[in-house]
Amino acid sequence: MKIGIIGTGSVGQTFATRLVALGHEVMMGTRNVAEKLAGQAKDGYGNPPFAAWHAANKDIRLGTFAEAAAFGELVLNVTQGANSINALTLAGANNLNGKILVDIANPLDFSHGMPPCLLPEFSNTTSLAEEIQKAFPGVKVVKTLNTMWAGLMVNPGMIGQGDHTAFICGNDADAKSRVKSWLREFGWKDDNILDLGDITSARGTEAVLPIWLRIWGATQNGAFNFKVVS
Amino acid sequence: MKIGIIGTGSVGQTFATRLVALGHEVMMGTRNVAEKLAGQAKDGYGNPPFAAWHAANKDIRLGTFAEAAAFGELVLNVTQGANSINALTLAGANNLNGKILVDIANPLDFSHGMPPCLLPEFSNTTSLAEEIQKAFPGVKVVKTLNTMWAGLMVNPGMIGQGDHTAFICGNDADAKSRVKSWLREFGWKDDNILDLGDITSARGTEAVLPIWLRIWGATQNGAFNFKVVS
Repeated sequence: MKIGIIGTGSVGQTFATRLVALGHEVMMGTRNVAEKLAGQAKDGYGNPPFAAWHAANKDIRLGTFAEAAAFGELVLNVTQGANSINALTLAGANNLNGKILVDIANPLDFSHGMPPCLLPEFSNTTSLAEEIQKAFPGVKVVKTLNTMWAGLMVNPGMIGQGDHTAFICGNDADAKSRVKSWLREFGWKDDNILDLGDITSARGTEAVLPIWLRIWGATQNGAFNFKVVS
Repeated sequence: MKIGIIGTGSVGQTFATRLVALGHEVMMGTRNVAEKLAGQAKDGYGNPPFAAWHAANKDIRLGTFAEAAAFGELVLNVTQGANSINALTLAGANNLNGKILVDIANPLDFSHGMPPCLLPEFSNTTSLAEEIQKAFPGVKVVKTLNTMWAGLMVNPGMIGQGDHTAFICGNDADAKSRVKSWLREFGWKDDNILDLGDITSARGTEAVLPIWLRIWGATQNGAFNFKVVS
Protein backbone atom coordinates (compact mmCIF):
# COMPACT_ATOMS: atom_id res chain seq x y z
CA MET A 1 0.00 0.00 0.00
CA LYS A 2 1.10 3.60 -0.59
CA ILE A 3 1.37 5.44 2.71
CA GLY A 4 1.89 9.18 3.18
CA ILE A 5 3.47 10.35 6.42
CA ILE A 6 2.85 13.97 7.43
CA GLY A 7 5.88 14.85 9.56
CA THR A 8 9.54 13.82 9.50
CA GLY A 9 10.44 13.52 13.21
CA SER A 10 11.52 10.41 15.06
CA VAL A 11 7.97 8.96 15.16
CA GLY A 12 7.64 9.41 11.40
CA GLN A 13 11.06 7.85 10.83
CA THR A 14 10.11 4.86 13.00
CA PHE A 15 6.94 4.29 10.97
CA ALA A 16 8.70 4.85 7.64
CA THR A 17 11.40 2.23 8.16
CA ARG A 18 8.98 -0.31 9.60
CA LEU A 19 6.40 0.20 6.85
CA VAL A 20 9.03 -0.18 4.12
CA ALA A 21 10.25 -3.37 5.83
CA LEU A 22 6.65 -4.62 5.70
CA GLY A 23 6.58 -4.02 1.94
CA HIS A 24 4.72 -0.70 1.77
CA GLU A 25 5.72 2.32 -0.32
CA VAL A 26 6.23 5.42 1.79
CA MET A 27 6.47 9.14 1.14
CA MET A 28 7.23 11.47 4.04
CA GLY A 29 5.98 15.02 3.80
CA THR A 30 7.65 18.16 5.11
CA ARG A 31 7.07 21.90 4.82
CA ASN A 32 10.10 22.59 2.65
CA VAL A 33 12.04 19.68 1.16
CA ALA A 34 15.23 21.61 0.37
CA GLU A 35 15.39 23.12 3.86
CA LYS A 36 14.71 19.76 5.49
CA LEU A 37 17.58 18.12 3.60
CA ALA A 38 19.94 21.04 4.26
CA GLY A 39 19.31 21.15 8.03
CA GLN A 40 22.34 20.13 10.08
CA ALA A 41 20.95 20.51 13.61
CA LYS A 42 19.94 17.64 15.87
CA ASP A 43 16.30 17.70 16.93
CA GLY A 44 15.10 18.59 20.42
CA TYR A 45 15.65 15.01 21.59
CA GLY A 46 19.27 14.84 20.33
CA ASN A 47 18.44 12.76 17.25
CA PRO A 48 20.65 13.30 14.17
CA PRO A 49 19.48 15.69 11.44
CA PHE A 50 16.90 14.32 9.02
CA ALA A 51 19.33 14.28 6.09
CA ALA A 52 21.64 11.85 7.89
CA TRP A 53 18.74 9.49 8.56
CA HIS A 54 17.40 9.88 5.03
CA ALA A 55 20.80 9.14 3.47
CA ALA A 56 20.60 5.72 5.11
CA ASN A 57 16.98 5.21 3.99
CA LYS A 58 17.03 6.16 0.31
CA ASP A 59 14.00 4.00 -0.52
CA ILE A 60 11.78 6.36 1.48
CA ARG A 61 10.45 9.20 -0.66
CA LEU A 62 10.45 12.78 0.60
CA GLY A 63 8.03 15.40 -0.64
CA THR A 64 5.97 18.34 0.47
CA PHE A 65 3.05 17.84 2.85
CA ALA A 66 0.76 18.05 -0.21
CA GLU A 67 2.78 15.53 -2.22
CA ALA A 68 2.85 13.04 0.66
CA ALA A 69 -0.89 13.42 1.22
CA ALA A 70 -1.60 12.93 -2.49
CA PHE A 71 0.72 9.89 -2.60
CA GLY A 72 -0.86 8.03 0.31
CA GLU A 73 -3.83 5.73 0.09
CA LEU A 74 -3.51 5.89 3.88
CA VAL A 75 -2.06 9.01 5.55
CA LEU A 76 -0.45 9.31 9.00
CA ASN A 77 -0.29 12.48 11.08
CA VAL A 78 2.89 12.40 13.15
CA THR A 79 3.45 16.14 13.44
CA GLN A 80 3.68 17.96 16.76
CA GLY A 81 0.12 18.50 17.94
CA ALA A 82 0.47 22.28 18.06
CA ASN A 83 1.34 22.26 14.33
CA SER A 84 -0.95 19.48 13.12
CA ILE A 85 -3.85 21.48 11.73
CA ASN A 86 -1.48 23.87 9.96
CA ALA A 87 0.48 20.99 8.43
CA LEU A 88 -2.70 19.23 7.32
CA THR A 89 -4.00 22.48 5.83
CA LEU A 90 -0.81 22.68 3.76
CA ALA A 91 -1.29 19.01 2.87
CA GLY A 92 -4.65 20.07 1.46
CA ALA A 93 -8.17 18.79 2.03
CA ASN A 94 -8.32 17.92 -1.69
CA ASN A 95 -5.42 15.49 -1.21
CA LEU A 96 -6.94 13.98 1.96
CA ASN A 97 -10.68 13.80 1.34
CA GLY A 98 -12.16 10.32 1.35
CA LYS A 99 -8.97 8.84 2.83
CA ILE A 100 -8.22 7.49 6.29
CA LEU A 101 -6.01 9.80 8.34
CA VAL A 102 -4.39 7.90 11.21
CA ASP A 103 -3.79 10.58 13.83
CA ILE A 104 -0.92 9.68 16.16
CA ALA A 105 -0.11 13.23 17.32
CA ASN A 106 -0.42 14.58 20.84
CA PRO A 107 -1.34 18.15 21.77
CA LEU A 108 1.62 18.73 24.06
CA ASP A 109 2.26 22.18 25.51
CA PHE A 110 5.94 22.82 26.23
CA SER A 111 5.39 26.44 27.29
CA HIS A 112 5.19 25.58 31.03
CA GLY A 113 8.44 23.57 31.15
CA MET A 114 8.98 19.83 31.45
CA PRO A 115 7.20 17.51 31.52
CA PRO A 116 4.85 19.16 29.03
CA CYS A 117 1.14 19.58 29.80
CA LEU A 118 -1.69 19.56 27.26
CA LEU A 119 -2.65 22.49 25.02
CA PRO A 120 -5.90 23.84 26.51
CA GLU A 121 -7.42 24.43 23.06
CA PHE A 122 -7.00 20.72 22.20
CA SER A 123 -7.79 19.02 25.53
CA ASN A 124 -10.31 18.29 28.30
CA THR A 125 -13.55 19.46 26.64
CA THR A 126 -12.18 18.65 23.18
CA SER A 127 -9.16 16.89 21.63
CA LEU A 128 -6.72 17.35 18.79
CA ALA A 129 -8.31 14.47 16.87
CA GLU A 130 -11.78 16.03 17.18
CA GLU A 131 -10.51 19.41 16.01
CA ILE A 132 -8.80 17.74 13.02
CA GLN A 133 -12.04 15.91 12.20
CA LYS A 134 -13.98 19.19 12.41
CA ALA A 135 -11.45 20.99 10.19
CA PHE A 136 -11.43 18.14 7.62
CA PRO A 137 -14.98 16.72 7.56
CA GLY A 138 -14.28 14.76 4.37
CA VAL A 139 -11.43 12.80 5.99
CA LYS A 140 -11.90 9.64 8.08
CA VAL A 141 -9.85 10.45 11.18
CA VAL A 142 -8.84 7.43 13.26
CA LYS A 143 -6.92 8.07 16.47
CA THR A 144 -4.63 5.29 17.63
CA LEU A 145 -1.13 4.47 18.97
CA ASN A 146 -0.55 7.94 20.48
CA THR A 147 -0.39 6.49 24.02
CA MET A 148 3.04 4.85 23.77
CA TRP A 149 6.64 5.15 22.61
CA ALA A 150 7.07 4.92 18.84
CA GLY A 151 9.18 1.76 19.01
CA LEU A 152 6.24 -0.10 20.56
CA MET A 153 3.68 1.33 18.15
CA VAL A 154 5.26 -0.61 15.28
CA ASN A 155 6.58 -3.57 17.28
CA PRO A 156 4.37 -4.36 20.28
CA GLY A 157 6.07 -7.72 20.77
CA MET A 158 9.13 -5.89 22.15
CA ILE A 159 7.62 -6.08 25.65
CA GLY A 160 5.30 -8.42 27.53
CA GLN A 161 4.81 -10.75 24.54
CA GLY A 162 2.76 -7.94 23.00
CA ASP A 163 0.06 -8.34 25.64
CA HIS A 164 -0.75 -4.68 26.26
CA THR A 165 -3.35 -2.29 24.91
CA ALA A 166 -3.73 -0.12 21.81
CA PHE A 167 -6.77 2.16 21.86
CA ILE A 168 -8.65 3.13 18.71
CA CYS A 169 -11.23 5.90 18.23
CA GLY A 170 -13.06 7.25 15.21
CA ASN A 171 -16.46 8.01 13.73
CA ASP A 172 -16.24 5.59 10.78
CA ALA A 173 -16.57 1.90 11.64
CA ASP A 174 -15.16 0.71 8.32
CA ALA A 175 -12.13 3.00 8.65
CA LYS A 176 -11.47 1.66 12.17
CA SER A 177 -11.76 -1.89 10.86
CA ARG A 178 -9.17 -1.14 8.15
CA VAL A 179 -6.82 0.51 10.65
CA LYS A 180 -7.15 -2.56 12.91
CA SER A 181 -5.98 -4.73 9.98
CA TRP A 182 -3.04 -2.36 9.51
CA LEU A 183 -2.21 -2.61 13.25
CA ARG A 184 -2.11 -6.40 12.92
CA GLU A 185 0.74 -6.01 10.41
CA PHE A 186 2.86 -4.54 13.22
CA GLY A 187 2.02 -7.48 15.46
CA TRP A 188 -0.98 -6.11 17.36
CA LYS A 189 -3.43 -8.84 18.31
CA ASP A 190 -7.19 -8.25 18.10
CA ASP A 191 -7.62 -8.90 21.82
CA ASN A 192 -5.23 -6.05 22.57
CA ILE A 193 -6.97 -3.43 20.42
CA LEU A 194 -9.70 -1.65 22.38
CA ASP A 195 -12.25 0.38 20.41
CA LEU A 196 -13.35 3.28 22.63
CA GLY A 197 -16.00 4.61 20.24
CA ASP A 198 -16.25 7.81 18.28
CA ILE A 199 -13.58 10.46 17.82
CA THR A 200 -14.53 12.26 21.05
CA SER A 201 -12.93 9.30 22.85
CA ALA A 202 -9.60 10.84 21.85
CA ARG A 203 -10.19 13.17 24.83
CA GLY A 204 -9.36 10.08 26.84
CA THR A 205 -6.45 8.72 24.84
CA GLU A 206 -4.71 12.08 24.45
CA ALA A 207 -5.10 12.59 28.23
CA VAL A 208 -2.89 9.52 28.73
CA LEU A 209 0.17 11.67 28.02
CA PRO A 210 0.41 13.31 31.48
CA ILE A 211 0.58 9.92 33.25
CA TRP A 212 2.80 8.49 30.49
CA LEU A 213 5.30 11.32 30.93
CA ARG A 214 5.33 10.90 34.73
CA ILE A 215 5.97 7.16 34.48
CA TRP A 216 8.74 7.80 31.98
CA GLY A 217 10.25 10.36 34.35
CA ALA A 218 10.04 8.05 37.36
CA THR A 219 11.34 4.90 35.65
CA GLN A 220 13.65 6.46 33.01
CA ASN A 221 12.30 3.85 30.60
CA GLY A 222 10.05 4.73 27.66
CA ALA A 223 9.58 1.15 26.50
CA PHE A 224 6.44 0.53 28.54
CA ASN A 225 2.74 0.48 27.79
CA PHE A 226 -0.54 0.16 29.62
CA LYS A 227 -2.53 -3.05 29.67
CA VAL A 228 -6.20 -2.88 30.59
CA VAL A 229 -6.66 -5.73 33.10
CA SER A 230 -10.20 -6.88 33.92
CA MET B 1 -5.26 2.11 63.71
CA LYS B 2 -7.81 4.92 63.98
CA ILE B 3 -8.78 6.14 60.52
CA GLY B 4 -10.84 9.22 59.69
CA ILE B 5 -12.70 9.27 56.40
CA ILE B 6 -13.67 12.69 55.05
CA GLY B 7 -16.74 11.99 52.91
CA THR B 8 -19.61 9.49 53.15
CA GLY B 9 -20.23 8.48 49.52
CA SER B 10 -19.82 5.05 48.01
CA VAL B 11 -16.00 5.26 47.96
CA GLY B 12 -15.97 6.17 51.65
CA GLN B 13 -18.39 3.36 52.45
CA THR B 14 -16.22 0.87 50.57
CA PHE B 15 -13.16 1.92 52.56
CA ALA B 16 -15.03 2.00 55.85
CA THR B 17 -16.35 -1.56 55.67
CA ARG B 18 -13.05 -2.97 54.42
CA LEU B 19 -10.99 -1.13 57.04
CA VAL B 20 -13.25 -2.34 59.87
CA ALA B 21 -12.97 -5.88 58.51
CA LEU B 22 -9.17 -5.46 58.66
CA GLY B 23 -9.44 -4.51 62.34
CA HIS B 24 -9.18 -0.73 62.15
CA GLU B 25 -11.41 1.77 63.96
CA VAL B 26 -13.17 4.12 61.57
CA MET B 27 -15.00 7.42 61.84
CA MET B 28 -16.62 8.91 58.76
CA GLY B 29 -17.01 12.67 58.62
CA THR B 30 -19.84 14.63 57.07
CA ARG B 31 -20.92 18.26 56.96
CA ASN B 32 -24.00 17.81 59.14
CA VAL B 33 -24.54 14.52 60.95
CA ALA B 34 -28.27 14.96 61.64
CA GLU B 35 -29.01 15.90 58.01
CA LYS B 36 -26.91 13.01 56.71
CA LEU B 37 -28.83 10.49 58.84
CA ALA B 38 -32.21 12.05 57.95
CA GLY B 39 -31.60 12.02 54.17
CA GLN B 40 -33.88 9.61 52.33
CA ALA B 41 -32.75 10.19 48.74
CA LYS B 42 -30.56 7.83 46.74
CA ASP B 43 -27.28 9.34 45.58
CA GLY B 44 -26.50 10.30 41.98
CA TYR B 45 -25.45 6.72 41.20
CA GLY B 46 -28.66 5.15 42.57
CA ASN B 47 -27.08 3.95 45.82
CA PRO B 48 -29.36 3.79 48.89
CA PRO B 49 -29.37 6.73 51.33
CA PHE B 50 -26.49 6.84 53.79
CA ALA B 51 -28.71 6.06 56.79
CA ALA B 52 -29.74 2.70 55.29
CA TRP B 53 -26.09 1.76 54.77
CA HIS B 54 -25.11 3.03 58.21
CA ALA B 55 -27.90 1.08 59.92
CA ALA B 56 -26.23 -2.08 58.61
CA ASN B 57 -22.76 -0.88 59.67
CA LYS B 58 -23.28 0.31 63.25
CA ASP B 59 -19.63 -0.25 64.19
CA ILE B 60 -18.59 2.62 61.91
CA ARG B 61 -18.66 5.94 63.74
CA LEU B 62 -20.16 9.04 62.13
CA GLY B 63 -19.12 12.56 63.07
CA THR B 64 -18.49 15.98 61.63
CA PHE B 65 -15.60 16.55 59.23
CA ALA B 66 -13.68 18.01 62.18
CA GLU B 67 -14.48 15.08 64.48
CA ALA B 68 -13.42 12.53 61.87
CA ALA B 69 -10.17 14.43 61.17
CA ALA B 70 -9.41 14.65 64.90
CA PHE B 71 -10.22 10.94 65.36
CA GLY B 72 -7.93 9.66 62.60
CA GLU B 73 -4.25 8.89 62.98
CA LEU B 74 -4.53 8.52 59.20
CA VAL B 75 -7.14 10.53 57.28
CA LEU B 76 -8.66 9.77 53.85
CA ASN B 77 -10.13 12.34 51.48
CA VAL B 78 -12.92 10.69 49.50
CA THR B 79 -15.02 13.79 48.86
CA GLN B 80 -15.95 15.00 45.38
CA GLY B 81 -12.94 16.90 44.07
CA ALA B 82 -14.86 20.14 43.59
CA ASN B 83 -15.72 20.11 47.32
CA SER B 84 -12.49 18.71 48.74
CA ILE B 85 -10.76 21.89 49.87
CA ASN B 86 -13.95 23.20 51.45
CA ALA B 87 -14.54 19.92 53.31
CA LEU B 88 -10.92 19.82 54.50
CA THR B 89 -11.17 23.44 55.64
CA LEU B 90 -14.18 22.46 57.74
CA ALA B 91 -12.19 19.45 59.00
CA GLY B 92 -9.63 21.98 60.20
CA ALA B 93 -5.90 22.27 59.68
CA ASN B 94 -5.47 21.94 63.46
CA ASN B 95 -7.03 18.46 63.28
CA LEU B 96 -4.96 17.44 60.25
CA ASN B 97 -1.51 18.94 60.79
CA GLY B 98 1.32 16.44 61.07
CA LYS B 99 -0.90 13.61 59.82
CA ILE B 100 -0.93 11.73 56.53
CA LEU B 101 -3.87 12.65 54.32
CA VAL B 102 -4.46 9.97 51.69
CA ASP B 103 -6.09 11.85 48.83
CA ILE B 104 -8.25 9.59 46.68
CA ALA B 105 -10.48 12.31 45.21
CA ASN B 106 -10.70 13.31 41.55
CA PRO B 107 -11.38 16.83 40.25
CA LEU B 108 -14.26 15.85 37.98
CA ASP B 109 -16.28 18.54 36.23
CA PHE B 110 -19.88 17.46 35.53
CA SER B 111 -20.90 20.85 34.09
CA HIS B 112 -20.28 19.80 30.47
CA GLY B 113 -22.35 16.58 30.60
CA MET B 114 -21.23 12.96 30.68
CA PRO B 115 -18.63 11.65 30.80
CA PRO B 116 -17.25 14.37 33.07
CA CYS B 117 -14.08 16.25 32.18
CA LEU B 118 -11.56 17.71 34.65
CA LEU B 119 -12.00 20.97 36.58
CA PRO B 120 -9.61 23.43 34.89
CA GLU B 121 -8.56 24.95 38.23
CA PHE B 122 -7.38 21.52 39.46
CA SER B 123 -5.86 20.01 36.29
CA ASN B 124 -3.22 20.16 33.53
CA THR B 125 -0.82 22.77 35.00
CA THR B 126 -1.78 21.78 38.55
CA SER B 127 -3.78 19.07 40.33
CA LEU B 128 -6.24 18.70 43.17
CA ALA B 129 -3.62 16.99 45.33
CA GLU B 130 -1.15 19.85 44.80
CA GLU B 131 -3.77 22.46 45.67
CA ILE B 132 -4.66 20.52 48.83
CA GLN B 133 -0.97 20.34 49.73
CA LYS B 134 -0.61 24.10 49.17
CA ALA B 135 -3.71 24.85 51.28
CA PHE B 136 -2.55 22.54 54.10
CA PRO B 137 1.24 22.79 54.20
CA GLY B 138 1.40 21.04 57.60
CA VAL B 139 -0.29 17.91 56.23
CA LYS B 140 1.52 15.06 54.46
CA VAL B 141 -0.61 14.60 51.34
CA VAL B 142 -0.19 11.26 49.59
CA LYS B 143 -2.15 10.69 46.39
CA THR B 144 -2.99 7.09 45.56
CA LEU B 145 -5.76 4.74 44.37
CA ASN B 146 -7.75 7.44 42.55
CA THR B 147 -7.19 5.73 39.18
CA MET B 148 -9.59 2.82 39.67
CA TRP B 149 -13.01 1.68 40.86
CA ALA B 150 -13.38 1.65 44.67
CA GLY B 151 -13.91 -2.10 44.86
CA LEU B 152 -10.44 -2.68 43.42
CA MET B 153 -8.78 -0.07 45.62
CA VAL B 154 -9.44 -2.19 48.70
CA ASN B 155 -9.34 -5.61 47.03
CA PRO B 156 -6.93 -5.68 44.06
CA GLY B 157 -7.02 -9.48 43.94
CA MET B 158 -10.54 -9.29 42.47
CA ILE B 159 -9.01 -9.14 38.97
CA GLY B 160 -5.88 -10.43 37.26
CA GLN B 161 -4.49 -12.02 40.46
CA GLY B 162 -3.88 -8.47 41.67
CA ASP B 163 -1.22 -7.95 39.01
CA HIS B 164 -2.04 -4.36 38.01
CA THR B 165 -0.75 -0.97 39.07
CA ALA B 166 -1.40 1.46 41.93
CA PHE B 167 0.37 4.79 41.60
CA ILE B 168 1.58 6.79 44.59
CA CYS B 169 2.74 10.42 44.75
CA GLY B 170 3.74 12.73 47.57
CA ASN B 171 6.46 15.00 48.89
CA ASP B 172 7.24 13.02 52.08
CA ALA B 173 9.13 9.75 51.55
CA ASP B 174 8.30 8.40 55.02
CA ALA B 175 4.60 9.15 54.53
CA LYS B 176 4.64 7.31 51.18
CA SER B 177 6.39 4.37 52.82
CA ARG B 178 3.69 4.19 55.50
CA VAL B 179 0.92 4.42 52.91
CA LYS B 180 2.55 1.58 50.95
CA SER B 181 2.38 -0.56 54.09
CA TRP B 182 -1.30 0.34 54.42
CA LEU B 183 -1.87 -0.60 50.74
CA ARG B 184 -0.35 -4.02 51.44
CA GLU B 185 -3.13 -4.65 53.97
CA PHE B 186 -5.63 -4.49 51.09
CA GLY B 187 -3.57 -7.00 49.10
CA TRP B 188 -1.40 -4.68 47.01
CA LYS B 189 2.01 -6.16 46.27
CA ASP B 190 5.14 -4.01 46.34
CA ASP B 191 5.88 -4.77 42.69
CA ASN B 192 2.52 -3.30 41.71
CA ILE B 193 2.92 0.00 43.58
CA LEU B 194 4.65 2.58 41.39
CA ASP B 195 6.05 5.69 43.09
CA LEU B 196 5.86 8.53 40.57
CA GLY B 197 7.62 11.10 42.74
CA ASP B 198 6.43 14.29 44.38
CA ILE B 199 2.88 15.56 44.65
CA THR B 200 3.04 17.26 41.24
CA SER B 201 2.90 13.74 39.77
CA ALA B 202 -0.79 13.80 40.69
CA ARG B 203 -1.19 15.84 37.49
CA GLY B 204 -0.57 12.51 35.81
CA THR B 205 -2.66 10.24 38.01
CA GLU B 206 -5.67 12.55 38.11
CA ALA B 207 -5.47 12.83 34.29
CA VAL B 208 -6.14 9.07 34.14
CA LEU B 209 -9.83 9.76 34.70
CA PRO B 210 -10.67 10.78 31.11
CA ILE B 211 -9.35 7.49 29.69
CA TRP B 212 -10.80 5.53 32.63
CA LEU B 213 -14.26 6.96 31.95
CA ARG B 214 -14.01 6.20 28.22
CA ILE B 215 -13.00 2.58 28.84
CA TRP B 216 -15.83 2.22 31.35
CA GLY B 217 -18.23 3.64 28.75
CA ALA B 218 -16.98 1.35 25.98
CA THR B 219 -16.85 -1.87 28.02
CA GLN B 220 -19.66 -1.19 30.54
CA ASN B 221 -17.38 -2.72 33.17
CA GLY B 222 -15.78 -0.67 35.94
CA ALA B 223 -13.86 -3.57 37.47
CA PHE B 224 -10.71 -2.99 35.43
CA ASN B 225 -7.37 -1.38 36.08
CA PHE B 226 -4.21 -0.44 34.22
CA LYS B 227 -1.06 -2.47 34.44
CA VAL B 228 2.21 -0.84 33.43
CA VAL B 229 3.90 -3.44 31.19
CA SER B 230 7.60 -3.04 30.43
